[in-house]
Amino acid sequence: MHSFENPIYVTRPTMPPLEEYQEMMTRLWETRWLTNNGAFHQELEARLCDYLDVEHLSLFCNATIALIVALQNFRITTGEVITTPFTFAATPHVLYWNGIQPVFCDIDPKTFNMDPARIEQLITPQTRAILPVHVYGTPCDIDAIQGIANRHGLTVIYDAAHTFGVRYHGKSLCSYGDASVLSFHATKLFSTGEGGALVTPSRACRERVDFLKNFGYADEETVIGPGINGKMNEFQAAFGLLQLKRIQAEIDHRREIDRIYRENLAGIPGITIPVEALHTQRNFAYFPILVDQTKYGISRDELHTRLRDKNVYARKYFHPLCSHYPCYAALPSANPQNLPVAERIAQQILCLPIYGTLDLSTVERISQFLGFFQKSSL
Amino acid sequence: MHSFENPIYVTRPTMPPLEEYQEMMTRLWETRWLTNNGAFHQELEARLCDYLDVEHLSLFCNATIALIVALQNFRITTGEVITTPFTFAATPHVLYWNGIQPVFCDIDPKTFNMDPARIEQLITPQTRAILPVHVYGTPCDIDAIQGIANRHGLTVIYDAAHTFGVRYHGKSLCSYGDASVLSFHATKLFSTGEGGALVTPSRACRERVDFLKNFGYADEETVIGPGINGKMNEFQAAFGLLQLKRIQAEIDHRREIDRIYRENLAGIPGITIPVEALHTQRNFAYFPILVDQTKYGISRDELHTRLRDKNVYARKYFHPLCSHYPCYAALPSANPQNLPVAERIAQQILCLPIYGTLDLSTVERISQFLGFFQKSSL
Repeated sequence: MHSFENPIYVTRPTMPPLEEYQEMMTRLWETRWLTNNGAFHQELEARLCDYLDVEHLSLFCNATIALIVALQNFRITTGEVITTPFTFAATPHVLYWNGIQPVFCDIDPKTFNMDPARIEQLITPQTRAILPVHVYGTPCDIDAIQGIANRHGLTVIYDAAHTFGVRYHGKSLCSYGDASVLSFHATKLFSTGEGGALVTPSRACRERVDFLKNFGYADEETVIGPGINGKMNEFQAAFGLLQLKRIQAEIDHRREIDRIYRENLAGIPGITIPVEALHTQRNFAYFPILVDQTKYGISRDELHTRLRDKNVYARKYFHPLCSHYPCYAALPSANPQNLPVAERIAQQILCLPIYGTLDLSTVERISQFLGFFQKSSL
Repeated sequence: MHSFENPIYVTRPTMPPLEEYQEMMTRLWETRWLTNNGAFHQELEARLCDYLDVEHLSLFCNATIALIVALQNFRITTGEVITTPFTFAATPHVLYWNGIQPVFCDIDPKTFNMDPARIEQLITPQTRAILPVHVYGTPCDIDAIQGIANRHGLTVIYDAAHTFGVRYHGKSLCSYGDASVLSFHATKLFSTGEGGALVTPSRACRERVDFLKNFGYADEETVIGPGINGKMNEFQAAFGLLQLKRIQAEIDHRREIDRIYRENLAGIPGITIPVEALHTQRNFAYFPILVDQTKYGISRDELHTRLRDKNVYARKYFHPLCSHYPCYAALPSANPQNLPVAERIAQQILCLPIYGTLDLSTVERISQFLGFFQKSSL
């Protein structure tokens, strides 16, 4: 089977019509207001509240700074926070930046999310909060996590980087917990180039967040605490406004891709497709599979290499586990013996290409490669 | 005297020709590469190295994150750092984010920069570094500060937010010390909307900084430490490339404004214009004055209000001192008795409008207001 002529990346941003962005720039050139709560910024915050069905949302230059501010907002600035090792580097790093020791909790083998049954044994008198991740947009076991948090007096901040537009039990997934952070990086379903947002539960909370993302300034002469610069600029906000207009088409096309992969890969021995979450309106942000070498014939790493040889850039997302990074590996909770499920999933996971402008014929062909590699390994 | 019809802000960004930005966007729409070291990003880093005459420079989403990474780069992550209270909030805040206690040092009454004669008495066994600010682009006493740093084994990181294009003793001002951070916020001489850069002394240092600003990723599977997201996106970099083409015209116009203010304000009792720094090629980023109420007749605050009544938005920059913020006011070094010069300057300072598209006739008229208020107070 022939390679693809051009590289097929795991994701690519869908660009809105260029003329529309240029029209936005014409308006920006008139106001010359490039940042600090500009007109596009205000409009995007309002539109996102509508679309996501939340009341209080603050835009950020990126999701990492939003998570840093989320923790600071609740003064989670010492002690321990329980989180997952099966996540992007930003999740444990934001704990570091707030002076917190991460405590890694093993994950559920079906959802890849933090396993609530393992959380309570990790709680100590120093625990301040739980920082779960809705991996690939699949909802965490929210009721169980909230129950534990209530019982032990812990704050719950969700890394909701993957959840744009996901609804769970009829509510926006990013409206659960004490706060949620969305990512709008170029690799995300909805993008502002770089960017992110912090969803908060009250006006007072949102106001404090808005101070903190602007150095703590409450007004020109009052600084309420050690803030940071988390401001999103107008170039980003303008792009976001145009992306948002087309988000439904983006999701619809990804749904088709998801359907094709599911149909084509279902019968391949050794390839596992995660089950679809219940009570969930999905966003099709990712298409992860698990590769079981004993049944598939070749390892995940070998499959990754063979796809790359065909010009398909699948991603080992997330590998390695955050608990393997040198800066966290020495923590007691990072011991691989405590994280057997996460260790296995990180060895088997592979995310396949999925994005709004990916040809369906390409999806068919990638599926065929996956079948072909298995057969040829027999 | 009549008010201005439209508000005159202390600064406004000079916009490059809209068509040129739209042309850059056409190129961006072709590549669809929105961030993570894109083509504009690479080009802007190279052009800035040329223009600023430095070898190693890393772009950032903003200068605050650049300063946070500068400290982390040198592992200045505990203990104390000596800095100035006469600065923007970001300067002490970046110390907080690295777990460091700021130690405030009084300033020189002529340059408004940290007074080297006061530094040594603030050094303790916990001191790790000195974080001076070249306020308004006026060079710090670099030789004295470097001498102290050498004698005591301290790192020197300059907050060079105001120094774009300033040369000192024939060298770029941002090339002194162990690292320097420039700001490209919309209010700065050179702007990328939001943005900043970290100038480092070696290839190895720059490489580590580039890892840290991208979550610590050295490659797809290796995370070298607790990084952060400090990436500048392509929308910002494109704007910067166009700004840079016209920077000389921007500086030339500001030089004219500076000259007119100096001529017109020189004779007004109670208004002091800072002396021009020796051996320095200036950038005319700011036009600060000091208001001595006993001679001028009205206070700085009253002058600020009266100008605002005329639709002129001068700025009390920097007031209040950072040592007055509630989060730092309880530090021993924040005691106003230890900072008599900074306390006085913060009460007298006012920055007048200066920017590339400010009419010279407006500058004349603002000058006349300043004379008029003094006479009318007699």
